[in-house]
Formats: sequence, C-alpha cells, structure tokens
Amino acid sequence: ASGSDLIRATLFPGDGIGPEIAESVKQVFKAADVPIEWEEHYVGQEVDPRTQSFLTWESLESVRRNKVGLKGPMATPIGKGHRSLNLTLRKELNLYANVRPCYSLPGYKTRYDDVNLITIRENTEGEYSGLEHQVVRGVVESLKIITRQASLRVAEYAFHYAKTHGRDRVSAIHKANIMQKTDGLFLKCCREVAEKYPEIKYEEVVIDNCCMMLVKNPALFDVLVMPNLYGDIISDLCAGLIGGLGLTPSCNIGEGGIALAEAVHGSAPDIAGKNLANPTALTLSAVTMLRHLELHDKADRIQNAILNTIAEGKYRTADLGGSSSTTDFTKAIIDHL
Amino acid sequence: ASGSDLIRATLFPGDGIGPEIAESVKQVFKAADVPIEWEEHYVGQEVDPRTQSFLTWESLESVRRNKVGLKGPMATPIGKGHRSLNLTLRKELNLYANVRPCYSLPGYKTRYDDVNLITIRENTEGEYSGLEHQVVRGVVESLKIITRQASLRVAEYAFHYAKTHGRDRVSAIHKANIMQKTDGLFLKCCREVAEKYPEIKYEEVVIDNCCMMLVKNPALFDVLVMPNLYGDIISDLCAGLIGGLGLTPSCNIGEGGIALAEAVHGSAPDIAGKNLANPTALTLSAVTMLRHLELHDKADRIQNAILNTIAEGKYRTADLGGSSSTTDFTKAIIDHL
Ligand SMILES: CC(C)[C@H](C(=O)O)[C@@H](O)C(=O)O
Ligand SMILES: CC(C)[C@H](C(=O)O)[C@@H](O)C(=O)O
Repeated sequence: ASGSDLIRATLFPGDGIGPEIAESVKQVFKAADVPIEWEEHYVGQEVDPRTQSFLTWESLESVRRNKVGLKGPMATPIGKGHRSLNLTLRKELNLYANVRPCYSLPGYKTRYDDVNLITIRENTEGEYSGLEHQVVRGVVESLKIITRQASLRVAEYAFHYAKTHGRDRVSAIHKANIMQKTDGLFLKCCREVAEKYPEIKYEEVVIDNCCMMLVKNPALFDVLVMPNLYGDIISDLCAGLIGGLGLTPSCNIGEGGIALAEAVHGSAPDIAGKNLANPTALTLSAVTMLRHLELHDKADRIQNAILNTIAEGKYRTADLGGSSSTTDFTKAIIDHL
Repeated sequence: ASGSDLIRATLFPGDGIGPEIAESVKQVFKAADVPIEWEEHYVGQEVDPRTQSFLTWESLESVRRNKVGLKGPMATPIGKGHRSLNLTLRKELNLYANVRPCYSLPGYKTRYDDVNLITIRENTEGEYSGLEHQVVRGVVESLKIITRQASLRVAEYAFHYAKTHGRDRVSAIHKANIMQKTDGLFLKCCREVAEKYPEIKYEEVVIDNCCMMLVKNPALFDVLVMPNLYGDIISDLCAGLIGGLGLTPSCNIGEGGIALAEAVHGSAPDIAGKNLANPTALTLSAVTMLRHLELHDKADRIQNAILNTIAEGKYRTADLGGSSSTTDFTKAIIDHL
C-alpha cells in the first residue's frame, strides 16, 4: 500500500507493559498487511519535566483528527488530586459508549464455555459525575446524573450495534425499582429507541437479578446496555467468566465517529519490561478498531489467528498458565495469520 | 417446654408461596422441639378493606417487642406510589445490616463447589436514599448518602460477626476510586473498626474487581461488607454461584438486637397454593434467627437436616430439578433431623 492509502490511527502505548504489548500489535498488523499508519503519542504516568503534562493537547488532537486510536494501560499519575487518565480521555473526547465483547475462548478452559455477549456501557455520566460533597460532618453525598440525551445516545448505539452485528436481543440493565427517576429515565429512553428497531427483541433486567443470571447461565444474554457504574461492574464480571481482563477487548465510541480501543487491564508494573505480558486484550481491542473502520477481512484474520493460537495451547503467557514470552506468543499469532 | 420457657417470635408468612413455606418452617421447628412460639401477622400485598393497610402498627410492634422474626416473600402492593414492603420494613425497624451466608450445597451441583462466604450489606442508606429529582427537563439526579454513623455501625457488625463466627477476613467492597467522598467515608469507617480487631485480616476490593474475582475464584472471600447497592448486587451474584435465591438465607439486623430473617426470593404467584414451592431459603433463614438467639444446637440440627436432604437428592422441589412437593420435601427434612 502506498502512503496515501494508509489510514492514520493514534497509538498511546501507555505505561508498564503498555509499550511491549503495543509493539505486538504493531507487528501483527504489519504481518497482516493492515493499511494503518500509527501516530504514536505518550500519555501516562510519567511527566514531561518541562511541561508537567501527563496528557498533551497534541495527543488529544491526534485522536480527534484520526478518529481512530488504540490505547494501552495507563497508570494514574502519583500524587494528590490526579484524576484517572482513562476518565480524562473519556471526558475530553466525549467517549459516550464503552463496548466490550466477551466470548468464551475455545481451548482456554474456565467454568463457562458458552459466553457470547456484548456489554455496552454509558461512559460519561451516572455515578461518574464527579459531583460529591459533604452535607454536614459525617454525612456525604454523591450525585448520580442521568440525562435523556446521553441515555438515548447510548441506547441508539446499542440497538444499531445489535442490528449491524447480527445480534437479535438487547437487554437494558437497571435498578429502576429503587432509582425510579434516574434509572427510570434511562429505561424510558431505551424503550423509545427499541420501538425504532422492531426486529430486535428488547427486555429490561434488574441489575441484581442480571448478575445472578449471568453466573448461572450467561448464554441467556446477547447485547446488554446500561448506565455507567452497572457497566463497570457487569463488564468485569463477564470478563471473569471467560478468564479475566487479559483476554477481553474494549472500544470507546465518541461523537463524530471517534473510536478509541483500549485494553482495560492494568499496566502491571511488576512484569513491565520483562517480555512476559499478554498482548491478547490489546490486540483484540485493535481488532474492534478495525471493525469500526469496516476492515472486516483484516479483523477476522487477526482475530482468528489469536483465537487459534490460544486454542492450540502451545504458546501461552504466564497469566494463562503458560511460560511463553510476549515475543514468542506474538510470533505464534503471526504464524497463525 | 412449658409456655413460659418459649421464646416468642414474629412470623410474617407473606404473599404467594409464603404461607406454604412458612408452614414448612413451623413443622420443622416443631419436630426439632425448637422452643419458639410464633406470633403470626399478615403483611403483604392484600389490603384489609376496612383499614386499607398493607402493614399494620401491630405487625411492626410485634417485631419490636419480640426482637426476632421471620418473613416470607411479600409482593409490592399494586397501584401507583407504593413502596416495596421490604424496604418499608427495613426503614421502619431500622434494620441496618443485611447478612447473607452463601455456601455451596453438597450434592446440588453448580459450576462452583467451594463457595463459603458471608455478605454483609448496609441496609438503610446509600443509593436507597429515595432522594431523587429532576434538575431540568431531561436531566435527573439520585443522591447516594453515606454517613459515618451507619458505616461504622455496619462495619462493627461485620467485624464482630467475623470474630464470633470463626472467620478471619473482612473485605470492604467499594468504588472509592470514583466516589472518593462517599465510598471513601465508608472505607475510612471500615479502617477505623478494623484497627479494633487486629486478629481479623482486613482488605479493600473495588467492586468491579470483586465481581471478577468472585466468578473466577469465590474461595478468595470470607466476610464481605459494603454499601447498600453493592450488597444488593453482590449477594445476588453469590446466590447465583450456589444455585439461586431459593437456597440462600438472609437475616436483617436492627438496632437494639432485632433480627428479622427473610427469604429474599419472590412470592412466585404462578406456583402459589400448588404445593410446589421450595422451603429451603425460608427454613435456612429461620436457622439464622436461631443463631441470633444463640440456639446453636437447634440451628445445627435443622441446618444439617436440610443440607443432608439436599445432598441425598431423593427429594427435591421443581426449582432444583426434582418433582417433590413442598410437603414431601418438608417431611424429608424432618426425617433427617
Ligand atoms: C480504572 C477505573 C477508573 C475504570 C472505571 O471505573 O471505569 C475501570 O474500572 C474501567 O472499567 O475502565
Ligand atoms: C426487592 C428489592 C427492593 C430488594 C432490594 O433492592 O434491596 C431486593 O433485591 C433485595 O435484595 O432484598
């Protein structure tokens, strides 16, 4: 591909194991001839001593301009009063939906072998408003904010996703029996959108009951859409069903067609630089970025190579009970392309 | 036992299958010579046509006077503006801690066989404040309230419980990385109490991570203490691990030594009156009431009879994949006493 055919994508390798797993993604993409040119920026824990910046204007502009990006794990800067960089990116780029596909990986055994669902999380408001204060000494309050605009937007995304990904059911997760106004508004918006998609089944499930059903029989679910905190909880629960955050991709969708894919696991400083990290979550996240770009052939090819490598079981990193290095595991993926 | 030796306990059979499973408890208690005299009151969905009351003063007074009680499932009264009776009881009786033991039942196979934990939920505030309003059209907010007083109280209960029940670890579950003030205060209170119990290990686990760990390896946990909504979610998740709400006991602890045990499953109107209901959760809840009264011999005897009946597998109700009637299952428990 000549330079002009290339799609520019932002890459934030991040902290800890971030650079190593980002390197894996680059190699796999190169081997698969993915027409992407990376524009790399450092966002993370380490301050530029001159600017004291963790997150530069140029980094944000890069995502805004390219509209697609991939981020590795970022540690929260040390010291008082720093906000998580993950949250800052969500806020600055208005990343309103967090999409996490979660499916059982053949060959990697857990207690579940029939998970195949997508959690879609409202990513900008709810319990993450940041509005908290002390009312009197010993009495504090946090505000959960639900808006019609953000609820319709994420519901619309969920139904559109279901329709365009061959999925036939959307479950809205809530606790409207207790939070009648906030979760009630969220459900009302989901219902409004559901009416525009008569071909997609729609149901509402109370969050406590949802968690019970998920651990008993996750195959009951298809696409789940929910307010911010429930999404945080349920997406981690679901990741646990199939083996943990080292295996699950994630993609943040923003206004104007922005997609920032990210590995949601930590930066694992203890194993950083030791060639031990598992690049699966970041590489599968990069695949969701390709799907967003509608590069489905490339996406399928890479996803299958990863799944087949794991299924084969010959090369596995330490977190999956193996002893392969990051580079050997990456080579194995490339061999399976 | 002569009348004067008997301990009076309140019984709210509740709605739907409530009366049938309450009858089972009465029979089992009688057969085990439990020195309890029931004082029965109706609280539930059906209105007394003269008073229009779902919940009478006499019912509340009965619990306040006896200090121990057992409640079956209650349906929320039909019509607009009715609050759940469960919540009303929690509020009126100031039931500040909800305790749910959750352990794998030998012989009843699920994906997990090593669950043995206790969730202790703050039961009066948090996301259940009932404080919600519309800020402007399309923007609503709910207030989560955390107080020092209620947090210390439930933390104290959790550590005391751990100590007196031979458990050596308490995990406080939170999302203080996001809700720094509310969940931060909750953690601060837990830490203060932890210092008074140096023999009990104390740890803090973020709720999303907790849910992931619970589905991967529930044996990592012992006693968990947490704000209201997290308790609602996690206790149902844990119930799911061992088979569902039909099998898990629950007990609400109030100021002044009140204990109101309850089955937390629904009233199952579809099978009500058909002799099909599973009395396990209500009977195990009644056992927690006996423990609260320090009638441990009786508690052990009944709990073992239930566990042995389930382990034997000859008599099982439909929800557990069997075809026994409520009365046959109850007889089997009595035979195992
Ligand atoms: C790190 C934390 C702030 C974040 C969240 O709570 O959203 C994480 O748990 C996630 O799910 O991306
Ligand atoms: C019925 C409902 C109001 C209640 C709750 O949310 O607390 C239930 O889920 C429970 O756990 O007791």
